[in-house]
Amino acid sequence: MSGHPEADIYHRQGIGQRAGLGTRPALVIVDFQAGFADPEHFGGGNIAPAIAETVHLLAFARARHWPVAHTRVVYADDGADAGVFTRKAPTLLKLTEHSPLSQIVPELTPVKGEYVVRKQGASGFFGTALASWLTQRRADTVIVAGCTTSGCVRATVVDSMQHNFRTAVATDCVGDRALAPHAANLFDMGQKYADLMTRAEIEAAYRNG
Amino acid sequence: MSGHPEADIYHRQGIGQRAGLGTRPALVIVDFQAGFADPEHFGGGNIAPAIAETVHLLAFARARHWPVAHTRVVYADDGADAGVFTRKAPTLLKLTEHSPLSQIVPELTPVKGEYVVRKQGASGFFGTALASWLTQRRADTVIVAGCTTSGCVRATVVDSMQHNFRTAVATDCVGDRALAPHAANLFDMGQKYADLMTRAEIEAAYRNG
Amino acid sequence: MSGHPEADIYHRQGIGQRAGLGTRPALVIVDFQAGFADPEHFGGGNIAPAIAETVHLLAFARARHWPVAHTRVVYADDGADAGVFTRKAPTLLKLTEHSPLSQIVPELTPVKGEYVVRKQGASGFFGTALASWLTQRRADTVIVAGCTTSGCVRATVVDSMQHNFRTAVATDCVGDRALAPHAANLFDMGQKYADLMTRAEIEAAYRNG
Amino acid sequence: MSGHPEADIYHRQGIGQRAGLGTRPALVIVDFQAGFADPEHFGGGNIAPAIAETVHLLAFARARHWPVAHTRVVYADDGADAGVFTRKAPTLLKLTEHSPLSQIVPELTPVKGEYVVRKQGASGFFGTALASWLTQRRADTVIVAGCTTSGCVRATVVDSMQHNFRTAVATDCVGDRALAPHAANLFDMGQKYADLMTRAEIEAAYRNG
Repeated sequence: MSGHPEADIYHRQGIGQRAGLGTRPALVIVDFQAGFADPEHFGGGNIAPAIAETVHLLAFARARHWPVAHTRVVYADDGADAGVFTRKAPTLLKLTEHSPLSQIVPELTPVKGEYVVRKQGASGFFGTALASWLTQRRADTVIVAGCTTSGCVRATVVDSMQHNFRTAVATDCVGDRALAPHAANLFDMGQKYADLMTRAEIEAAYRNG
Repeated sequence: MSGHPEADIYHRQGIGQRAGLGTRPALVIVDFQAGFADPEHFGGGNIAPAIAETVHLLAFARARHWPVAHTRVVYADDGADAGVFTRKAPTLLKLTEHSPLSQIVPELTPVKGEYVVRKQGASGFFGTALASWLTQRRADTVIVAGCTTSGCVRATVVDSMQHNFRTAVATDCVGDRALAPHAANLFDMGQKYADLMTRAEIEAAYRNG
Repeated sequence: MSGHPEADIYHRQGIGQRAGLGTRPALVIVDFQAGFADPEHFGGGNIAPAIAETVHLLAFARARHWPVAHTRVVYADDGADAGVFTRKAPTLLKLTEHSPLSQIVPELTPVKGEYVVRKQGASGFFGTALASWLTQRRADTVIVAGCTTSGCVRATVVDSMQHNFRTAVATDCVGDRALAPHAANLFDMGQKYADLMTRAEIEAAYRNG
Repeated sequence: MSGHPEADIYHRQGIGQRAGLGTRPALVIVDFQAGFADPEHFGGGNIAPAIAETVHLLAFARARHWPVAHTRVVYADDGADAGVFTRKAPTLLKLTEHSPLSQIVPELTPVKGEYVVRKQGASGFFGTALASWLTQRRADTVIVAGCTTSGCVRATVVDSMQHNFRTAVATDCVGDRALAPHAANLFDMGQKYADLMTRAEIEAAYRNG
């Protein structure tokens, strides 16, 4: 992101420092559901390679017994929980509990003890017990993978920061249906909310942890 | 935003509908504080003209007795409430209660009955009673002005939508220190969270209301 | 409650006023699940008659097309969302999604369009999207039935008030496994958080509404 | 509380276990403001001795560098943030920022680095950044003192539990204007939300910590 033509003003104003990682990481995987892996529904762009990278990050997290949470967008079968978000994107209402589109992609299927967060908003924290769950596990750091970078990942990252979890975006484990918003949102997050790190950098930071 | 090269995929996936406005609007003005009006601190870009437009929008809202809330970023004098956000942007800690930098700009000074929200995060809703205050006033719609488009405006808009307030961004009443993030975030918000309307369009919608 | 020996001090301090009802009520039924109807599990006391009264209140609400929400305590099959609450009351972990104990009692089975809130805490609002759902339906008032008066009803009522919904406890539609806590919590709620009204009083207030 | 005539049913149903304390405690002192120390305003009952005991608990916490937060009920000078709570108890509106009644009692005056939470609701967590602040300090346990036991202490304790902080009520450091609600709420909290411990027991648990 260092090449951003307007990045200078952030630097001059003291914005864009590294927050650093804590000692008790958790992995939060946002909305890697079948419907978001499929360009015919909500997918496209660089979401597929992000899923492929996340398979490795998830294996790393499991090997170290990190708390792992998966978010899913799920609406009631009768649409009783529709709201403003589904007015902007009515197709989201297809993501009912048992719809194939709402299932987490097979290669990231949650295992026993992992937390599955159903949500109707953008952020994995909004209207859910995710923050409480992280507190129960004494996490101090949230590593974020998932999609879309410009949507639910961004919203989840902003909330993670606001809850005062140190937050890192795994830059090659997040994806979006469109690449310009992907890049623009990585820039915003890196300047203000989270540290941007590749999967390899995150793994290196915690390899001996 | 219609010229965005990747906008087609949103359209094909059913995203980017208009949510529409409700009948009980409130105006939320985000962080138009002296420090954000000053390019030496957190300002720059198109923030100054956004403040100038907001003067008119505020007059319109006051004439119709809309609920009006102003957010301010304010940290404790001793920094006791510093967190991850101030690790990313340590200069924010200058915004103490009585610092000239933290005061709302003179042309938008709150009047009796308007709600001043002190916050330490990005969203005007996070860790504040803003949602409760809007409920008390029976608002169903939130009109958002303020800065920065790519920061606290975006975070406030996402939360407003998640709380299920119909949300409109007054596109000429929001500003940012950098124009590319301003445009990118308007695009994201218009696709997923809020209706994008100029001040003139908002006023026209409510003129006879 | 007027007979409470210490009620005088509340009166002298100006506490215990009526808040009054608004014009857009919603009904929230707290945890009337099979396990709470059964004295062998979490039931007892006056819960059974409270359910019987709530059948009538629910019919009244449905006839007037009020928004209706039902809360359920539900924990993950693998206990992944256990927390401090289940350390205090480990038997709650029996309330898994498909356990007969966690189902809403048959006489109050939700119908299409009613909102079913799964929760792991005490309050129906905590870690859930209930407040957003009420906002979407433009409710300004919450009528509360359910159990237990001294537990999840009380917690839900406090949050409803804090969200600035006018709140009324349907005194004969709430029940508890033990009668002294039931009475003590009605007293607290009536003094500070909600108006105490019988089902008949609530229905009379809205009969022509 | 063991003498409560209906305590048996809690025991039979598996409720009322000890949750235990964690290793990183924080002290949260609720609403020990001048107005709550004065029986002419919101005080009375056993609030004065609870303040006297809390002086010692605060000294203990400070000596061990625990995070310490103090909550204050504070309303805007113009009442712009009044809500349902102040409809139930309108006299609360006297607690403006600079009113002598809203100041923390002199013997518990916050020192540098302690967090002062302004709130308009009952719970110290509702509409505030208290949970985020505790997360920033990596607290896993909340020790609660303050007043009133049946009001803002109870609401704060329920939320602390819901956020999954291990929670202990310092039984001799909480007080209420009326003794029956004090006792009833200690019973409820001990059964469902928190461990009840005297100041001496809390200090013993952490003396070598």
